[in-house]
Amino acid sequence: MNKYFAEFLGTFWLVFGGCGSAVLAAAFPELGIGFAGVALAFGLTVLTGAYALGHISGGHFNPAVSVGLWVGGRFDVKDLIPYIVAQVVGATAAAFVLYIIAQGQAGFSGVGGFASNGFGDLSPNKFGLGSAFIIEVVLTAFFLIIILGATDRRAPAGFAPIAIGLGLTLIHLISIPVTNTSVNPARSTGVAFFAETAALSQLWLFWVAPILGAVIGAIIYKVVAGEKD
Amino acid sequence: MNKYFAEFLGTFWLVFGGCGSAVLAAAFPELGIGFAGVALAFGLTVLTGAYALGHISGGHFNPAVSVGLWVGGRFDVKDLIPYIVAQVVGATAAAFVLYIIAQGQAGFSGVGGFASNGFGDLSPNKFGLGSAFIIEVVLTAFFLIIILGATDRRAPAGFAPIAIGLGLTLIHLISIPVTNTSVNPARSTGVAFFAETAALSQLWLFWVAPILGAVIGAIIYKVVAGEKD
Amino acid sequence: MNKYFAEFLGTFWLVFGGCGSAVLAAAFPELGIGFAGVALAFGLTVLTGAYALGHISGGHFNPAVSVGLWVGGRFDVKDLIPYIVAQVVGATAAAFVLYIIAQGQAGFSGVGGFASNGFGDLSPNKFGLGSAFIIEVVLTAFFLIIILGATDRRAPAGFAPIAIGLGLTLIHLISIPVTNTSVNPARSTGVAFFAETAALSQLWLFWVAPILGAVIGAIIYKVVAGEKD
Amino acid sequence: MNKYFAEFLGTFWLVFGGCGSAVLAAAFPELGIGFAGVALAFGLTVLTGAYALGHISGGHFNPAVSVGLWVGGRFDVKDLIPYIVAQVVGATAAAFVLYIIAQGQAGFSGVGGFASNGFGDLSPNKFGLGSAFIIEVVLTAFFLIIILGATDRRAPAGFAPIAIGLGLTLIHLISIPVTNTSVNPARSTGVAFFAETAALSQLWLFWVAPILGAVIGAIIYKVVAGEKD
Repeated sequence: MNKYFAEFLGTFWLVFGGCGSAVLAAAFPELGIGFAGVALAFGLTVLTGAYALGHISGGHFNPAVSVGLWVGGRFDVKDLIPYIVAQVVGATAAAFVLYIIAQGQAGFSGVGGFASNGFGDLSPNKFGLGSAFIIEVVLTAFFLIIILGATDRRAPAGFAPIAIGLGLTLIHLISIPVTNTSVNPARSTGVAFFAETAALSQLWLFWVAPILGAVIGAIIYKVVAGEKD
Repeated sequence: MNKYFAEFLGTFWLVFGGCGSAVLAAAFPELGIGFAGVALAFGLTVLTGAYALGHISGGHFNPAVSVGLWVGGRFDVKDLIPYIVAQVVGATAAAFVLYIIAQGQAGFSGVGGFASNGFGDLSPNKFGLGSAFIIEVVLTAFFLIIILGATDRRAPAGFAPIAIGLGLTLIHLISIPVTNTSVNPARSTGVAFFAETAALSQLWLFWVAPILGAVIGAIIYKVVAGEKD
Repeated sequence: MNKYFAEFLGTFWLVFGGCGSAVLAAAFPELGIGFAGVALAFGLTVLTGAYALGHISGGHFNPAVSVGLWVGGRFDVKDLIPYIVAQVVGATAAAFVLYIIAQGQAGFSGVGGFASNGFGDLSPNKFGLGSAFIIEVVLTAFFLIIILGATDRRAPAGFAPIAIGLGLTLIHLISIPVTNTSVNPARSTGVAFFAETAALSQLWLFWVAPILGAVIGAIIYKVVAGEKD
Repeated sequence: MNKYFAEFLGTFWLVFGGCGSAVLAAAFPELGIGFAGVALAFGLTVLTGAYALGHISGGHFNPAVSVGLWVGGRFDVKDLIPYIVAQVVGATAAAFVLYIIAQGQAGFSGVGGFASNGFGDLSPNKFGLGSAFIIEVVLTAFFLIIILGATDRRAPAGFAPIAIGLGLTLIHLISIPVTNTSVNPARSTGVAFFAETAALSQLWLFWVAPILGAVIGAIIYKVVAGEKD
């Protein structure tokens, strides 16, 4: 059970830190952290979570990562569903606590998009479904290539959380204006429950595209690394 | 005595660097470092202090961390009070030196809040007591999970100061607009003595909430890591 | 073949991430990542790519790096042309996918410079050919010194991707206003095919100067490191 | 001779990268990297330079560091003068190349302060001599504590360039508005020769304060670390 609890905690931290920085700190007048600060925050949730909890659960914190690691031959299928459940519950719990905190601001007038993901009218810079789908697939595929490569036994030991965490920062630096960046169905689901927009109606894309990308990335890594099935 | 001196120095550095960047550099017109720069500065004080002094004192620099490490079974209770004294004295000394420097600016007109922590009217974005209490508890709990996890013997050796320092950066990226971010009673105390606001009257929260959070975080880590008492 | 595929993937990631962040996220109103965010993104493509794929291909992702490593005695000349071909194809493929994504924005009106490199009228801050040539030579020379030094058997093992990746971030922090920063002929070539400016007419400089700089840097490192031919 | 050449190169890189980012990129309209970007650039010159050249010369790149390492018992006095000469020549050469590049901008109208250090009217935010002196002493003292601590045989091996480089970033995050941040007499000297301000007349402070701070820091570290003379 400990590993499921670790996945719950790590995904809670990912959503509380990443979406929390977006909701609470990104747009503060003059001094706000902007998209670059949010990108750094998301990456650091994974960097810190992986050093803190990676030895317990592997540090996935993301259903697409769990699927990709299974396809990549690094994760036992019997843990797949419990991991995904723990991740979604952790993400939702974090969104709930964040929602409570956000309501404590003087003159609070609603959480708006609440850092949810979207395309079309719900894209920060109004990118359509096609662009959103492609970029989520491509970025999740490379996320899995980074994860599988940095944890390859031929890669230097101990550095994987740096590569993976800062890889998630990079992914956000590229794509916040397109979809608000998912590459993580649990993160998308947790905040969508609380968003005042139609985020839930677009949630399907942030399950389908990241998981498809993760499968593609895992297959690409197996090919480039010369691994046999 | 050397370890107490190391805690004095490390906490001096945390307050001088973290609060110093906030007071001196955050709001410089056009070019200022903003909240993201302050978040980076706080984290780097701990990253650098832990690599420089961690082998002498363990590198706590924070009463809540010392309490949490005691609860987590990593720190001897007999050192708890001397550590906390050294930390508070170091933080206050740093605030004093920073105060002297700040006064040397042409047209100096007072230090204002002096990077102190607060809620309600003293919250940067006017978050109430409840939000302040919850976020300080949650963030300090995860800070302890990161510290206990990254220094676990199963985690890769040598990387803990990176995880812990950048974890503190992440914590600031999330919460500066809420409480100006404490998670550290010594840091809050040092600057409260010099603030021109009512910071001292709210100081209790920044002792109670971080220490409560640290205890919760230590217990959670022991559970998730499967450690027996 | 695997190493050529790794170079294709790594250079794809470099252009998709670095130029992608510039095209999609740099100038978002108020919250955009700016040149500093783009600099971080370029560096993180190499940091992550080197941890993920370095054990397969060495992680060059740049024709100037491949030439410099050959001059520095670390790379077999028989792989030089296939590596460069893989890099240019990867960069071009990334630019193509980025181009497709960019077109999906509501009210799309063209990609403009598309993060291409240039001097004179095509320099972000209107620096002339001489300044552009000098800075590209100097920065690529130091890039090779960093690469050869950080992978020297006397340097601490495992840290090279951090030094090299953040070295590329540093290079961008300095020089985006001058040439939009190349130091990488493949990166310059990939996006020049899609730019709506005269970028292709200036592309020669971003092959000649980086490769000249890489040769100079490799020779300097061999001298300073006391290596014999 | 190789170690002197390495110090020349490393200090060239420090000034070219740190001051170069300040001169060329800090104040670009809307997208400029600001003080935070300059702080990151200075730190990354040392992080990359230390990984690339540290195994050749120890990677000082700074006369105050060389003096402090001598006081701290880590550096042979017979190399002190040649190191300082190499550092000042390297810094000046970098400033010269940067000066040439800066002149290549269309509508070039002079380099102004050219990232030189100063107090009073030459302080970015008009801090007086006293504040400037104190902050340079304090920051250089902690810089030496970080350097001596992170390279202590009890500290984890290989991480010192990260701690030291990001320590220099932290130092800049705090103090650019006060003195433009020196903590390095060679860096101050190199650009002062080219500044159009009275920077040369204030250069004495940026030799005296950093060297005094370095001596104090080295003594403090020896005390806290329990080292005997």
